[in-house]
Parts: sequence; C-alpha cells; structure tokens
Amino acid sequence: MNRRSIGIVVNGVTGRMGYRQHLVRSLLAIREQGGLPLRDGSRLWPELVLVGRSETKLAEIAARHGLTDWTTDLSAALARDDVEIYFDAQVTSQREKAIRAAIEAGKHIYTEKPTAEGLAGAVDLARTADAARIKHGVVQDKLFLPGLRKLDRLVRGGFFGRVLSVRGEFGYWVFEGDWQAAQRPSWNYRAADGGGIVTDMFPHWHYVLEQIFGRVTAVTAHVTTHIPRRVDERGEEYAATADDAAYGIFEIAGPDGPIVAQINSSWAVRVYRDELVEFQVDGTEGSAVAGLRTCRIQHRGATPKPVWNPDLPATEDFRAQWQVVPDNEEFDNGFKAQWELFLRHVVEDVPYTWDLWAGARGVQLAECGLFSAREGCRVEIKELRA
Amino acid sequence: MNRRSIGIVVNGVTGRMGYRQHLVRSLLAIREQGGLPLRDGSRLWPELVLVGRSETKLAEIAARHGLTDWTTDLSAALARDDVEIYFDAQVTSQREKAIRAAIEAGKHIYTEKPTAEGLAGAVDLARTADAARIKHGVVQDKLFLPGLRKLDRLVRGGFFGRVLSVRGEFGYWVFEGDWQAAQRPSWNYRAADGGGIVTDMFPHWHYVLEQIFGRVTAVTAHVTTHIPRRVDERGEEYAATADDAAYGIFEIAGPDGPIVAQINSSWAVRVYRDELVEFQVDGTEGSAVAGLRTCRIQHRGATPKPVWNPDLPATEDFRAQWQVVPDNEEFDNGFKAQWELFLRHVVEDVPYTWDLWAGARGVQLAECGLFSAREGCRVEIKELRA
Amino acid sequence: MNRRSIGIVVNGVTGRMGYRQHLVRSLLAIREQGGLPLRDGSRLWPELVLVGRSETKLAEIAARHGLTDWTTDLSAALARDDVEIYFDAQVTSQREKAIRAAIEAGKHIYTEKPTAEGLAGAVDLARTADAARIKHGVVQDKLFLPGLRKLDRLVRGGFFGRVLSVRGEFGYWVFEGDWQAAQRPSWNYRAADGGGIVTDMFPHWHYVLEQIFGRVTAVTAHVTTHIPRRVDERGEEYAATADDAAYGIFEIAGPDGPIVAQINSSWAVRVYRDELVEFQVDGTEGSAVAGLRTCRIQHRGATPKPVWNPDLPATEDFRAQWQVVPDNEEFDNGFKAQWELFLRHVVEDVPYTWDLWAGARGVQLAECGLFSAREGCRVEIKELRA
Amino acid sequence: MNRRSIGIVVNGVTGRMGYRQHLVRSLLAIREQGGLPLRDGSRLWPELVLVGRSETKLAEIAARHGLTDWTTDLSAALARDDVEIYFDAQVTSQREKAIRAAIEAGKHIYTEKPTAEGLAGAVDLARTADAARIKHGVVQDKLFLPGLRKLDRLVRGGFFGRVLSVRGEFGYWVFEGDWQAAQRPSWNYRAADGGGIVTDMFPHWHYVLEQIFGRVTAVTAHVTTHIPRRVDERGEEYAATADDAAYGIFEIAGPDGPIVAQINSSWAVRVYRDELVEFQVDGTEGSAVAGLRTCRIQHRGATPKPVWNPDLPATEDFRAQWQVVPDNEEFDNGFKAQWELFLRHVVEDVPYTWDLWAGARGVQLAECGLFSAREGCRVEIKELRA
Repeated sequence: MNRRSIGIVVNGVTGRMGYRQHLVRSLLAIREQGGLPLRDGSRLWPELVLVGRSETKLAEIAARHGLTDWTTDLSAALARDDVEIYFDAQVTSQREKAIRAAIEAGKHIYTEKPTAEGLAGAVDLARTADAARIKHGVVQDKLFLPGLRKLDRLVRGGFFGRVLSVRGEFGYWVFEGDWQAAQRPSWNYRAADGGGIVTDMFPHWHYVLEQIFGRVTAVTAHVTTHIPRRVDERGEEYAATADDAAYGIFEIAGPDGPIVAQINSSWAVRVYRDELVEFQVDGTEGSAVAGLRTCRIQHRGATPKPVWNPDLPATEDFRAQWQVVPDNEEFDNGFKAQWELFLRHVVEDVPYTWDLWAGARGVQLAECGLFSAREGCRVEIKELRA
Repeated sequence: MNRRSIGIVVNGVTGRMGYRQHLVRSLLAIREQGGLPLRDGSRLWPELVLVGRSETKLAEIAARHGLTDWTTDLSAALARDDVEIYFDAQVTSQREKAIRAAIEAGKHIYTEKPTAEGLAGAVDLARTADAARIKHGVVQDKLFLPGLRKLDRLVRGGFFGRVLSVRGEFGYWVFEGDWQAAQRPSWNYRAADGGGIVTDMFPHWHYVLEQIFGRVTAVTAHVTTHIPRRVDERGEEYAATADDAAYGIFEIAGPDGPIVAQINSSWAVRVYRDELVEFQVDGTEGSAVAGLRTCRIQHRGATPKPVWNPDLPATEDFRAQWQVVPDNEEFDNGFKAQWELFLRHVVEDVPYTWDLWAGARGVQLAECGLFSAREGCRVEIKELRA
Repeated sequence: MNRRSIGIVVNGVTGRMGYRQHLVRSLLAIREQGGLPLRDGSRLWPELVLVGRSETKLAEIAARHGLTDWTTDLSAALARDDVEIYFDAQVTSQREKAIRAAIEAGKHIYTEKPTAEGLAGAVDLARTADAARIKHGVVQDKLFLPGLRKLDRLVRGGFFGRVLSVRGEFGYWVFEGDWQAAQRPSWNYRAADGGGIVTDMFPHWHYVLEQIFGRVTAVTAHVTTHIPRRVDERGEEYAATADDAAYGIFEIAGPDGPIVAQINSSWAVRVYRDELVEFQVDGTEGSAVAGLRTCRIQHRGATPKPVWNPDLPATEDFRAQWQVVPDNEEFDNGFKAQWELFLRHVVEDVPYTWDLWAGARGVQLAECGLFSAREGCRVEIKELRA
Repeated sequence: MNRRSIGIVVNGVTGRMGYRQHLVRSLLAIREQGGLPLRDGSRLWPELVLVGRSETKLAEIAARHGLTDWTTDLSAALARDDVEIYFDAQVTSQREKAIRAAIEAGKHIYTEKPTAEGLAGAVDLARTADAARIKHGVVQDKLFLPGLRKLDRLVRGGFFGRVLSVRGEFGYWVFEGDWQAAQRPSWNYRAADGGGIVTDMFPHWHYVLEQIFGRVTAVTAHVTTHIPRRVDERGEEYAATADDAAYGIFEIAGPDGPIVAQINSSWAVRVYRDELVEFQVDGTEGSAVAGLRTCRIQHRGATPKPVWNPDLPATEDFRAQWQVVPDNEEFDNGFKAQWELFLRHVVEDVPYTWDLWAGARGVQLAECGLFSAREGCRVEIKELRA
C-alpha cells in the first residue's frame, strides 16, 4: 500500500490531555490502524516530533511508545523541513507565542483551546494565520462525542421542527481538599493562574451552540465563587479567587428564529442527572436530552399531557416516556475523529470549520460572559471580522 | 362539645381553584372533620356565604354540598354582621376592588395571588389593610406541599451547611390547541388579559425562596414567547402576546451568605424530570432535590467523586446515589393546612407571615423580572416599606 | 532514577501473617512498584534479610521470591550495619526478647501486636525504645481497611455531629474440630499458650476506638468460654482453657463528650451481618455502619420515624434506608499502606502515632478487660506515662 | 350454646394501650368471636365495667363500642358482686394502690407492668395476692408475638443444642422534638415522672429471658442519657433527666449451663436491622435471629466457614445463609392470646406462670440494672421468696 508521511510537531505531550488523548488515543492510534486512509487509496502516516520542557519525561514517553524523535528545542523542531503541522497542548500561557512562531515557520496549526489568554491575542492569531495562508484548526472535542453527534444528527434531520430552547447542566462536586483530596488542580481556582470555570467552559459551550444551533448573539451571566477557601495539593489552605460557578443565558440566532440557551456550569453541584453534562433541547416538533454518550427523545406525537394536581403524587414516570436514540454507527474517540478531519483538511483540502476564528469566538464568549456578570447587564456579541 | 361559628364570604367559588381546593378540599373538609379544634378545646365551624356572578352555578354548587347561603351581591354579603372573613379567588382583574371593599367593611382578608395587577395596587392594599387593623393572608399553597415542607425541614435542621445555590425547573408542554386541545385557558397567553408565565409563577418563586432561603435581593431574567400562535377554546387561532417562558436568576441574602437561585419556567418544555416542578439545592454539607411530593438528599459523606472521562460511558448511576427523605408525618392538603393556620391567626392570634405584604413582594418580583428582561439588566429589589 | 536502599530484618516470615501480608503483599509489593517514591523524587528500596527458625522453610520462601538473604541467626542479622529496621511477626511469646535485642542493636522497630505478653513488658519496651532514640511502630492494620478509612473520614468530616455510641460485632463460628476441622490454631484456645479472644482482639478495638473516636477511659467486660472442649490439629480432644467470647463495654472521652462503645467478640457466633466485623456509630446528626470494606450512612435528614406497632409486620425495609459511602479513592492493601507510612517515618521523619506506646495501651486494655470480667467490676484505665 | 359471663373491671381504658390493645383488640375481639370457648363446650363472655377519671372520655368510648357500663368510681365498681376480675392499665404511679384495693375486694388481678414503682411494693403486692388466694397475672405481651413464639418453639424443640448466648438490639431514633416532633411522650425522658428506658424495657427483657431461656442470675449495665436536652409537646425545651440508653449484660442459668445475654436498649440509635427489636441466639447445634414477627435459623450443618481475608471484599452474602422459620400456625394478637390464657386460668384453673411474682422480678431487674450502672459493678440477683 502507498504510504505518505506527514511530519507533526507535538508540543505539550507531557500534560495529561496532550499525552493521553492526543498522542496515545489519536496519533498513535492512527498509526496502529496502519495510518489514515486517504481518498486516493494511500495512507497518511504521522511522523511525530515530541517537544516539551523536561528531557526526562520526553525520553520516558518516547521509550514507552517506541518513538525516537524528541527535543526540548521548539525552534529547531519548527525549522525542520519534514514537519508540516504544529500541534499545541501546552498550558494556556505558553500557547500564543509558540503558535505565532509556528505560523512564521510556515507550519499548519492545530491547537488546544483557549487559543490565547485574551480576545485580542486570539483574533490576531487567526488573522496572522490567514495572512500566512496556512491551515489551522482548534480542538473542539465535545462535538465529537456520541451524545452530541446524535443530537447534531437530530437537528440536521429536522427532528425538532423549530428549535426553541436549550437547557444545559454541567458540573459535579469538586472536593474542597480538606476532608477528601480535590479532583481538580488548585490553579483552576486561582484567577492569577488563569483559573475559573467561565474561562474553562464557555469556549466549550460556544462551539457546541454555534456548530449545532447557530451564532451566539448575546450572553447574560451570573458568576460566583461558591467555595471561597480550598486546600491545595500540599495540604495548605488557599483563597479561591476564580469563579467556580456560572449561570448563563445565551441567545442564539437559529435558522428559524431566536433560540435561548440556559446553561449552568458549576464545580459545586451534586449530580442528579444521567451524565456529568446534559443538554435538553425543546422544539415545536420534539425534544431531546443529550449527554456525552446517550441521547433520548420525545416526539410531539408522544408528548404527554400531565395533570397539575398537587393533591396527588406524580403518577406518571416522565423519564420513561423518552426513547433512547440508537447509535447506528460506531463513534470513534472524539479527539482522534477530529485529528483525522484536520489531517484530511491539510492534505486533501476537505472543508474544516473549527479554525482559529472559532477558537477566538470561544475566547470572546468567555470575556463577554465575565463582563456581563461584573456589570449586571446583557452583552451583545459582535461578529469578529477577519 | 363547644362549637364557635365563623362567617366567611367565599368569592370566586365557581372557578376551578376556588371550588376544588378552597371550598371542597379546605373549608368543607374542615367541616367534615367536625370543625377546626382550637386550643381551648372548642371547635371552630366555618359558616360559608358563597358569592359569584352566575346564579345558576352558585345554586348548583350549593345544592351539591348541602349549602344554602349564597348570593351574587357582594356588597350585601360584606354588609352582614355574621361575616368575619372575606376570601377572594376571582380572576385577578376583579380582585383589588373587591378586597378594598371588604377591608372597608371591616372584614379580615384571605386571598389568592396575585393580590393586584400592579405593584402600586398591591402595596396600597397591604397599607390599607394594616391601617384598618384587620388581619390578612395570601395563599402560598406550594409551601405546604410535602416536597417543599421536607425541603424546608432540611434547611431548618441545618442539613445543607451553608446553602450555595438553588436550581429550579418548572413546566410542561402546553399543547398549541390545533392538534390537541390546550390544557390551559387562552387568556394565560394574552398580555391584555393579565396572562404570562412571569406574572403567574414569579410570585410563587418569591414566597418559596423568601420563606425557605431568605430575602430576594436581585433578579435577572430572560423572557420570551416560544409559541407565538395558538388555537383557543373555540378552535380559533390567536396571537400569543404574553410570555410563555422565563429564564431567571435570583439573588438571595441567605443567613450565611449570598445564594443564587436559577429557575426556568416554561409552558413549552417537555418533562424529563420526576415531577412537574423540581428544585435542586446545593450546600456545603449536602444537597437535595425536591418536587411537590418527594424530596431526595445526598449528604457530603455520600458524595461521589466522579471521573470525567469522555472515553468511557458513565459507569455510575448518579440518581441512585440519592436517598428519599421519609415523610415522618402526615401532610394534609396544602390549601387546607394554610386555611387552618389563617383561621387560627384570626381567632387565636397565632403568628402568620404570609400576608398582603408578602403578596405585594410577589407582585414586585414579577414586575422586576419583566423589567430586567425588557431592559437587559439585573434589577435590585427594594425592600417594601409599610 | 535515584534509588536508596534500606535494610530490613524480617523475623517470623514463615507464619501466615508474616509471609502473606508483610512479605508478599507489603515489602515485595513495594519492590514490584519500583520502590517507595520519596519526596525528593528518589525511591526507597527495601533490602530484606529473612529470619526464622526453620532453614528449610526460609530457603523455600527465599527461592520462591528470588531472595537470597536469609538466616536462622537473629543476632548475626541484627549485628549487620546495612540493616536499619527490625520487623517482628513471631508468636507473641518470642516477641519481647527479640525486640529488646534489636533496640540494643540500634535498629528501628516495627512489630506485630501484641507487643508483649504483659503490660509491664509492653511499657518497658516503649520506654527502652524511647531511651534508645530509635523509631518504632506497631501494626494496626484494621485502621487501614477501606471500611474503617471511610468511617474515619466521616468522623473527620463532622458527619456525625456529636458521636453518642458505637456498637461492634466481631466473630464467626470456629468449628470445634470434631466434625469439621477448626479454622483457627488450637493454641488460640489454650490460656497457657497465650490464647484467648480478649488478648487477641482488645488491642485491635483499642486502636480503632482511640484513633477514630478518642481515649478509652474505662472498660467493663464479661468473658466466657462457650465451647470448653475442642479437637486439635492432630485430631485429639483438648480442654479450651482460654476465653472464646467477650462482651465488652468501653467508655471513651470523645471530643464533644463521653461515647459508649459496646463490642462483642466471639468465636462461637454465627454471622447474620454483612461482614465478619461491623461497627455501628450513632451521632446526633447521623449514623454509619462500617465493616472491613463497606460503609453505609443514614443522615438525620433521612432518618425514618418508625411506628412501634406489634400488630403489624414491619412495613419498612430499614436496611434499604441506608446509603453506601462511595470510595472516592483507591485503597491500597492496609498492611502495605502502614509499611509505607512507617518507612517514610524512618527516612523522612513524617509523623507516626502508631508506636510502641500505642501497642502498650492495647495490651493494657486487654489486661483491664480480663480483670473486669474476673472481678465483676468496671475498670478505669490509667494513662500510661513515658 | 351455653354462655357463662365473667365481670371484668377495666381500669385505665382511656390510655392508648388500655384502649387499643386490651379493650378493642382483646376483650371486644373475644366478644366479637362469640366469647372464649371453654373445655366444657360453653363460651365465656366478658362483661365489662369501664373505669377511668374522665367521664367525657369514658362516655365517648362506651358509646363508640355500644357499651353501657362505666364509672369514675373505682370503689363502687370493685364492690360489685358480678365482677370477678380487676384489670389495671393506669399510669404506673396509680397502679399499686388500685390493685391493693381490688385484692381486698377479693377480685382476681390482671395488670400491665411494671406492677409497682419499686421492688418492695411489687413483692408486697405478690405476697398479698397469694395470701388472699386470688389469681393474678401480669401482661407480658412480647412473649406472645410471632417472632418470639417461634424462637420459644425452637428452644423447646432442642434446635439449639446447648444455648450459649443471646444478643439483643432494641431501639430506634426518637426525634428530639426541635426539628421534628418526638414520637414518644416527654415524661419518658424525665426521671421524676417515672421515665427512663431501663424502667421501661428491663421488665420486658426479664420475662423474655426467663420464660424462654432460664432464670436471670446477674446483671451488669452501663446506662446513659445520650440526648440531654429535648423539646416537649408544647414546643418547650426541657432537660432529659432519665436514661435513654442502656447497654446490659445478663447472666442466665440455662438448663445446660450458663447463658450470657447482651442486650442494648436505646432511643438514640438508627435502625440497621430487620425489625425494631431483634434477638440472636447461638447454640452448639444452631443459631436463630428473631424479631417481633419473623425468625430465621442457621443450623450447624449449614454453617459456613468464612475466610477472614482483609484483602478481599466479602464474597459471601451471610444473611442469605439463614432460613426463615415458617409460621405453621396462626398467631393471634399477643395481648388477646394472653387474656385468653388468663381467663382460662381463672375459670378452668389452667396453669399460668406470668403472675405478680414474675412482675416483681421484672421490677427487680430494672432496679438491679440501675444499681449496677451507678456503682460500676456486676449485681447478682437474689431469688424472691414468697
């Protein structure tokens, strides 16, 4: 079989997400299946150059997976001619500078979100990338999860009629760290370190809403820090200066009229749901409840007419009146699925909408959400211009 | 046994709520049990004067229940010396005027909500009633439902530690009337007739939040009309001019710090819940999910540490990790329970906080919510002064 | 990676507990995971010197696990400079003398319980060890089992409010040896050989009570020998001269007031429980039932109000009203977990409370319990002084 | 059919137990079934004279059940020739005096327990009754409950071999009265009013142990007041001066050797059991667990040999290894069953062991238990002599 190699600098491979989801579950998985099959019958083979700051860790990871090409010198890696793509999974503060260097070196860009620490930087990155005529993509992994894939399929198939509203609940209880160890790192709770649930989750909500339902035109948010003191990894108490819960209302320009999306995000909520994140979508013709994995529907034709009678216990089992949407296809790992799309975008020029502009719009929504909360007002979201 | 009679004008007995809940399930039920037992060992016996606009309907209701005292002349009824209490369950537009007349006639007032069509009228009613030194109460029936009684018990018992947040979901799908008949009257959807879900439900949310958690200090709301055209009782299409969904964020001054309550109310949502209305309360020590009937809890000690792993289906049955709160007492019909408290307030002077001022605060919250939605801003709620 | 060796004499490795739990499941398991990770990034590597009385058995064990360093000469082993720790899992009667020799040789001490046959010996061992300024620890394995770890977590987290009482049930049916072979060695039932359930189990109860709830201040016990004749390993009948059941009441000085712990220990009881040992703890705010593995809770907010009505069968499934406490962490083998703590205590000086004084207090409780039973009186327990 | 009447003075019929269990469920039930069938084929018909202190209540009860013979004058009732039996279900403080009067009047005595407030009085009552050569009985209702009937049947049938031990757990959580109303009257918690769980429950344990297993020869008890402050029926806080929990060890002279019974009684314990009271009995041949209703057994031949392996979760479902004892007969209401035995004792002279001496021994056990707790010593129980 014909095999075509493509050189990829993988920067930030020592972090949990970079290692587990991008290296092991995506790039190495593509190699394990013999490379990515292309339209012409050949297979695309990722040649990986691991980049990081710790020689020891890089050496150990490389050895574990039989890789030999790694370096702590990013400039040298970007100078190589056999590298076509630069991938970034570093901590946010290091990202913008590295991507800029990669664009200058003429590499295509694929990167984790948020693309920059502020909107201006994120927009400038997108503009610079366009000007350099390179291809660029931003990870939007949740879109590729089975639950949201099925939800998207329902929207495309016209199941909902006119979509009216979206309700989203995301969150779980992150332990305070005193009594039981916290399951998230302490920097998530420090504003100075780039923490905060709005910065973390609003970019996710942005691409979910935009890709599935339509452009987000306005946001109103209430943001708070429910747990003001926590205990860190070393057992020391610290002040939580970043927000840990956000109650947001998003307005969307849907194809058939306005849609309202009300989404709560919280690290201080206990889970009385099927999954850790859940979206309910209501439309004139039917409704759906989608999580990461499953998706349930109730069509207009199966909608009950419940009686509001406070004298009686609820006699209907409302949840039993919903029907599970079958998979009907095999859903690959979401990160890998998006990697494959981006690789095809690069080598076969298939369309790809999840680019640095989409990344910038995610950053924008987080900034607007925080502004709305601070000022107590609804914020209309300007369309970003190239 | 000693029996003491108390005359009550029951106005609006031909409506569904007035007839079913107030007349049959409350006042007649008190008679069936031999009257209301008082502290001194005697029993209070309600003598009812039914008032309405339709002679036919009044006569029919009276006959059905062996009652003989009814009239269409409210003034005459209010002029009677043997009447101590005026109760109002008319449509909202008729209420203020009738209550004012009853106050002038020196009767104690018990009334359905909203107490008036606007805040000014509601406040003036409360002031006038205070000035007349009569006793007054407003129906706040949901507080007396088993689910909220148990929720309140948990708050009083300190179960939650510091309460952080409340999530509320209310609603169901009200049919549009074309394909299946609507289960709510069409005036609910016409602004000119006093319709709208904010006007209907925000007063409920007000007393629930205020009585159980603390004073409501600010509101931010997004209000919309999801279904703009409906078909009425006569099969004719009409424009729905009133709001049918409200996405609200309420700020509360809790005893241990601020609490945020995010509550969605909608007549255009399908029910994927245990009950038609449901509140989730999260606190530092534990959480609860309460409906009209049931209440479930998860204590800090039983809180799981879920792993966010998009590679795997949810392996935990999160809902099974909550525990049903036992009743531990028998809950009477909520309307009857509040009637008994009000009667005791009148004859034995037991304290009673659900008065016309509470009713006015409910009207205020609805007005502030609608203002917030119209202007796109958070509205701080002023304390009403006598 | 940096590796630091630590020499450990393992005495008594041919017994079931010494071999299985200490050698295989703890020390060899630490080696299998690459040594114990220390704070400075290096790893601590246990170098083992097996000691025992049977050359054959030692040789066989060593061969099975690829070990080469073993001897029957304890003095020689203790004289080695590359040995820092002496561990003792011999039969009780041999322990005191061996530990004393190890202290004299300047080794740190880690030992199974009971630390000596009598209180005087146990206290003297602790004093001698302190005077020699060596570090010392006593195995208290049950504390490190998942059920008791979760129970302890609940106490630390304040779940119980004020703890009122502890009920403990330990035991199972040990066959008499005639009809079915006994599952415990016959010396357990002979007083002259150091047998008896009080001597065996009261030290366990002591550290469980002391570490989780507070100091044990008094004991009242009834002790008996339910099965006076048994058949030994060789099929010969013998007189059981040691106690095989103890019914004890322990008084504890809890942080918020006195706690009573009532614990039954028996080798002549059939098991109608979830686990072989089970503790029920009741507090003002909630209760828990903990075994070796699982832990269940019932919070005050979920406590039912059962009706005592002998006319009716129990209509409530009381056990279903308790909720399983989730693990929320991975629990390593309890023996290994404590070994790791002790090794860190030796090389990194982390605090360690389970020392020879704790061991002596366990012996003291057994002595006081036996005295209480013999004299028919409650015995107040004196605080041991260094 | 031949019918023979027997006159019974029923004193204390306005209390819950006297009314519900003795009048309605026993005496009236005997009448409803056409009287008690006697050996000679005739039927014994109880003619009831209701006695109490409240005319109103007596009149109301009498009317409700079609009875006509009632009075507030006990002396007059006792003076009647057509009365053969005096039954007493008054509050404890009134009992001794009334029984003494009835004995003087030559009536047979049947009475609730405790028979007197102190041991001296109880013994004197028994002596006086013997001297007067009347028949006497004391209610020991729990013995007649299905669970204990089946347990007794197992003992009589030799199921246990030699009985070794009894474990008893009684209790439930009595709410403090602040947050939820208490389900027991406040006098139960006041020493001055005759409250306390020892006084209430030890007489029950006495007859259960004595009747089923053998004479109680010694008691060791720890008694405490777990909840020192409660809220009474009027919502007022009060000091709980009586004991609310007792941890007792009872020694019994069984037919084949000593038996130890360890019984906990508490109003401050949450229920992780099948029933509110439960006894486990272990014997050489088998064991049983009996509640009020059900009884389960495990024979020696079905006894498992559990492995004590802290490395593994319990793999055996121990409770499933017990077998439910079938009823094999219909168990009548326990109070009625004992009434029928006493009536037969009076008219047919069938043997009856539950007499005033048994009642006195119950009072004695309570006194000795309290003494043991106060003095911290085991108390041997003297045999009472006529």
